[in-house]
Amino acid sequence: MNKTDIILDNIYNRKSVRQYTDKKITKEDLDKIIKAGISAPSGLNLQPWHFIVIQDKQTLIDMASIHEYAGMFKDATAGIIVLYDTKKTYPGLEELAIQDLSAATENILLATEALGLGAVWTAIHPVEKRINKLIKYFNLPENIIPFSLIALGYPLKKQEPLDKMDTTKIHWDKW
Amino acid sequence: MNKTDIILDNIYNRKSVRQYTDKKITKEDLDKIIKAGISAPSGLNLQPWHFIVIQDKQTLIDMASIHEYAGMFKDATAGIIVLYDTKKTYPGLEELAIQDLSAATENILLATEALGLGAVWTAIHPVEKRINKLIKYFNLPENIIPFSLIALGYPLKKQEPLDKMDTTKIHWDKW
Repeated sequence: MNKTDIILDNIYNRKSVRQYTDKKITKEDLDKIIKAGISAPSGLNLQPWHFIVIQDKQTLIDMASIHEYAGMFKDATAGIIVLYDTKKTYPGLEELAIQDLSAATENILLATEALGLGAVWTAIHPVEKRINKLIKYFNLPENIIPFSLIALGYPLKKQEPLDKMDTTKIHWDKW
Repeated sequence: MNKTDIILDNIYNRKSVRQYTDKKITKEDLDKIIKAGISAPSGLNLQPWHFIVIQDKQTLIDMASIHEYAGMFKDATAGIIVLYDTKKTYPGLEELAIQDLSAATENILLATEALGLGAVWTAIHPVEKRINKLIKYFNLPENIIPFSLIALGYPLKKQEPLDKMDTTKIHWDKW
């Protein structure tokens, strides 16, 4: 397979993985994954992102209670919280931070897939209850807002991506 | 280089490309790029996205006047507008559509990089003036909201990615 197809296949094959073996993820792989997040584009090049990388078992278990769909953290061997700094947003364009962090989160998921790992993006923003629980848990400064919570691990089983192709969503030159 | 490194390098090497040659992008490549967008994760699996793919030269030139930073559309050989369907959002969680479309936009940029093309993401959302101009230009249904406007083409010159690594943004287990 040529390089282009290897990269496209990785994008097409990414899936949400919620069950993991207990094999640990190396620090080297976590570094590569975070570098992917940091490589995201950012509006006005403000790079508002921060990352909390979780390897501690008790902290991972505690993440399972952040919201009702985060139960997979009981088995995850690592986690990443993507956060933004409100001081790195532009007045009236605060939403660009949400766009930047979404791109960073997607890069993290794609890097995870590339490394043979599995991951799932659980939404924190815009649910205030979830945001506040993480602020309290990590004792965050008031300018730091949690955005997404990603569970990671080696996949327990082989899994196919969803087929989402729907040509009625593609419009050529006109709506 | 092994597969993993090829994929990671593509993520690390994506850059905003604003100058293009006049070589056309094939329909086959545009199909691959849109498939990447459609492969994004989506909150509650709502897949709220739509895509307008622009190949018509006059339409591309017209996009240059959508906002003050869209001048590169005068040279772009293709464009993609990513839009969402407000009927595919969940009450109170409408922002998830923004997150989904940001991930779809990033997938499009990464696929573009993989194909040896260049692209730049110009923000439409949340700037009402830009949103309204596109609604009017494409005569969009009232439930369809433009989110991002991507210019594409073969890069005019070789370009290095920005080095955004900043280890003070990476926090291990604690803030």
